[in-house]
Amino acid sequence: MGKDGKKLKKLKKKARKLKAQLAELEARVTGPKGPLVAPLAQPLPDLPAIDGVRFATAQAGVKYKGRTDVMLAEIAPGASVAGVFTRSSTRSAAVLDCQEKLKARTGSGGWAILVNSGNANAFTGAAGGLSVDAIAQATGQALGLPAARVLTASTGVIGQPLPHDRIVAALDGLAGGLDPDGMAGAAKAIMTTDTFPKGCVRTVEIDGLPVTIVGIAKGSGMIAPDMATMLAYIFTDAKISETALRTMVKDLTKSTFNAITVDSDTSTSDSLIVAATNRSDHARITSARSTEGRDFKAALADVMHELALQIVMDGEGATKLVEVHVTGAANALDARRVASAIANSPLVKTAIAGEDPNWGRVVMAVGKSGARADRDKLRIAFGDIVVAENGQLAESYTEEAGASYMTRDRILLHVDLGLGEAEDRMWTCDMTYRYIEINADYRS
Amino acid sequence: MGKDGKKLKKLKKKARKLKAQLAELEARVTGPKGPLVAPLAQPLPDLPAIDGVRFATAQAGVKYKGRTDVMLAEIAPGASVAGVFTRSSTRSAAVLDCQEKLKARTGSGGWAILVNSGNANAFTGAAGGLSVDAIAQATGQALGLPAARVLTASTGVIGQPLPHDRIVAALDGLAGGLDPDGMAGAAKAIMTTDTFPKGCVRTVEIDGLPVTIVGIAKGSGMIAPDMATMLAYIFTDAKISETALRTMVKDLTKSTFNAITVDSDTSTSDSLIVAATNRSDHARITSARSTEGRDFKAALADVMHELALQIVMDGEGATKLVEVHVTGAANALDARRVASAIANSPLVKTAIAGEDPNWGRVVMAVGKSGARADRDKLRIAFGDIVVAENGQLAESYTEEAGASYMTRDRILLHVDLGLGEAEDRMWTCDMTYRYIEINADYRS
Repeated sequence: MGKDGKKLKKLKKKARKLKAQLAELEARVTGPKGPLVAPLAQPLPDLPAIDGVRFATAQAGVKYKGRTDVMLAEIAPGASVAGVFTRSSTRSAAVLDCQEKLKARTGSGGWAILVNSGNANAFTGAAGGLSVDAIAQATGQALGLPAARVLTASTGVIGQPLPHDRIVAALDGLAGGLDPDGMAGAAKAIMTTDTFPKGCVRTVEIDGLPVTIVGIAKGSGMIAPDMATMLAYIFTDAKISETALRTMVKDLTKSTFNAITVDSDTSTSDSLIVAATNRSDHARITSARSTEGRDFKAALADVMHELALQIVMDGEGATKLVEVHVTGAANALDARRVASAIANSPLVKTAIAGEDPNWGRVVMAVGKSGARADRDKLRIAFGDIVVAENGQLAESYTEEAGASYMTRDRILLHVDLGLGEAEDRMWTCDMTYRYIEINADYRS
Repeated sequence: MGKDGKKLKKLKKKARKLKAQLAELEARVTGPKGPLVAPLAQPLPDLPAIDGVRFATAQAGVKYKGRTDVMLAEIAPGASVAGVFTRSSTRSAAVLDCQEKLKARTGSGGWAILVNSGNANAFTGAAGGLSVDAIAQATGQALGLPAARVLTASTGVIGQPLPHDRIVAALDGLAGGLDPDGMAGAAKAIMTTDTFPKGCVRTVEIDGLPVTIVGIAKGSGMIAPDMATMLAYIFTDAKISETALRTMVKDLTKSTFNAITVDSDTSTSDSLIVAATNRSDHARITSARSTEGRDFKAALADVMHELALQIVMDGEGATKLVEVHVTGAANALDARRVASAIANSPLVKTAIAGEDPNWGRVVMAVGKSGARADRDKLRIAFGDIVVAENGQLAESYTEEAGASYMTRDRILLHVDLGLGEAEDRMWTCDMTYRYIEINADYRS
C-alpha cells in the first residue's frame, strides 16, 4: 500500500488543482453555480394582459445589481382577491401583514402587490415590521390607495435588515411605468436563485365568453444563507364572488402548491395571491358547484398545477420530475401521508437520481408514514412497470425494464395500498449531488 | 466563450480520466465504496463476558463470502428479557415473530437470539414467514429450546428470498462453538455496510456488587438495494424483574435509539433486545424508583445512548456528529417536534456539512415543525456561540467565530424557544456528497 498510497496522494493533489481550474472555467462559461438553466426548464409562454391589472418593475438595488428586483402589480377597484400563505410559525413580517389585511379587508378601491427579491426581510426583529409598513405606506401614496390595500412580499437573504428606502425611492417610477403588458417582466423581477421565470396561461369559455387566467411564480432556489420562498400571483378577468374565489383557491392549494416538495423544508414566506378583476361580462360565479364555477375552477386548477410543477422542475439540482400517485388508501389522510413520506424520503429521491427502481425504499417509506398499510397487499409500479405485488417482487418484473424506465426525465411512481378507495398525488424531484453542492456551499 | 469552451472540454476530458484513475487507486487502497472506516469511527472496546450468555458466529454464506454472517446468542434460563421494535407498518417477518413471542412468553427455560446479515428477509411474501419458522425451529433443536424461545433478526438486501437452509446447516456448528467471550465476534457478524463494529461496556455497583452491562449494535449503512436496519443487543448480569426491565427499556428508547436520525427514513427491521441474566447476587431490582433501580437505569441509559451515537457516527457519509438540544418548549411533544424537524432537515444538515452556521435554516425548521414558537423569542446557539436572539442576529455574533466553531467534528446546536420548561435532545449527522454517492449509486 505504501507505493499506491504515495501515488494516490500525488494524483489527488493533481486532481484538486484540475478541479479548481475546472470550476474557474465553468464559472466563466456558465455562471458561478453551474448551468444557468435547470435541465427541466420550461420556456416562459406569452403572458397576455388581463383587463384591470397593470405591472411595473424596477432596479432598486436591494441586493442584486444590473437586474430588476422590485415588481408592482396594481389591481383595479372591484376585484375579488384571495390569498394563501405558509403555515410556518416563524413566518415573515410581510406574510403576517398580508394575512391581517386580507382578513380585515378594510378600505375600498383596488389592491396593490409589491414584491422585492434579494432580501427576505425575515428574522429581522421589530425592524422587519417597520419595513413592511414603510413600503405599504409609500406604495399606497404612489397609487392613491390606503396602506391596508397593499400586499407585500420579500424573498432572498434572511436575517439582514431590508433597505426599504431603496424600494420607497423606486415607487414613483414604478407607479409611472405601470403597463398591462408587463407580466413577463414581473415574472423575472421576483426571481432569486430560480434558473428560469415561471408563468402559465389558460383560457376558458364561461357563458360563451372567453376568460383568461394568467399566473407567475418563483420557486425553490436557495443558496446559503437564503431560504426557499415560493411566491405565486395569479390574475384573471373572471367575474366571481370573493367568497367563491377564496373557497376554490383554498381547496385547490391542497392538490397543487401544497402537493409539491423539493426537500421537505418549508419557507417562512410562501405566498399565493389570486385576483379576479371581474371585468368579463359573463354571469357572476358565486359557487364552484355551478357549471360556470366548475369550468372556471378546472382552468384555475390547471394554472396552479402547472406553476407548482414548474417550481419542482426548478428544484435545486433536479434532473427528474417525479409524480407520486397513491391509491387504495383507507382514507384521504392516509393517502396524503404515504405520498408525502415517499416524496420526502431522501432514500427514494437519491435512488431516482441514480436511476434505480428501488422499490424496497418505497416499501420503507410506506411503512414509516404512519398510515394503515398491509405489506402483503402493496403494489408498486414505476410507470406501467409493476415492480412488486402481493408482498414480493412481481414475477413479470425484469431489472432491465425497470432500469430502462428510470432513465426518463418524468417518473411516475404508483403505489396501491389495496385497502380502500382514497387516493392522492404529490410531485417532487430527485436528489442529486447538485442539491448538496448548492446547499452545503462547502467552505473548504 | 468559444476559446474557453474548448479549453473547458479538454480539461473536462482530462479530469474524467484522472477521476477514473483516482477511483481505481482508491478502490485498491481503501475498498470500492470509499474509506473503509467512517471518519467518526470508534474503536471497539474489550467486551467482557456476562455470566449466563454465550455467543457463536459462523460463515454461512447467506450472501457475503469470506466473513461471518450469522451470530447466535444463548441466554441461560432465568433471564429477564425486553424488546423494542420498529413501528413501521411494513415491518419484516422476523420483527412480527419477535413481537409475538415476547408478548406470549410461552415455554420456559432460556432464550436464543439468531441474527443473519446479508439478507433482510423483508418483503419476501409468505416465504419470509416460513424462513423465520425454519430458522427458529432449527435453532431450538440445536439448543434444546422450544422455537417460541428463539428470537431472530435479518439484515441486508430486501426483496430476495432468504436462503435459510444455509443458516440451518450452520446451526450445529454454532451450538458447538458457543463461548462466553464471543461478543466481539458477534458485533462483527451482524454488520452489513457498517464501517466499524459497535459496542459499549459499563459497570455499575448495585448493593456493593459490580454489575456489568455490555451492548453491541449495527447501524445505518445502506447501499442500494439495501435498507438501513438498526439492531442492538444488550446483556447484563443484573438481577431485575422482567416488568422493571421492560419499563426501563421502553422509557430509555425514546431518548436514545428513537432520538437519532441519519436521514429521517425508518427501517422495516429495527430491533433492540435487552437480556438480564439475573446472575448477580444483589437484591433484585423491581422498579426504576428504588436506589438500585435508578443506578442500574442510569448505566443502561449510558450504554443505550453510546450505542445510538455510534450508529449516527457511522451514518452514511457522516463527517460530523450533531446534537440538537431544544429548551424552552411549551411541552414535551413540541420539544421533540422541533428537535426532529431540525435533525431531519436536509437544508440544516447540508449547511453543517458545508461548515456553515446557517441559523436561518434552523429558524425555518422550527417554523415548519408544527410546534408552538414565537419568532421574536427564539435563541439559537452553535456551541457557546449565540447566533440569533430576540428575533434577529445576535449583536455579539461574528461570522468568524461561527465559521470557526463549525469546523469541529462534534457540533452542538442549541435552540431555546423561550416559551416554557420542556426540553429534548436528538442526535444526527451532516449530509454530504458521500450520502448521495452511497445512496444514488449512479448507474451512468
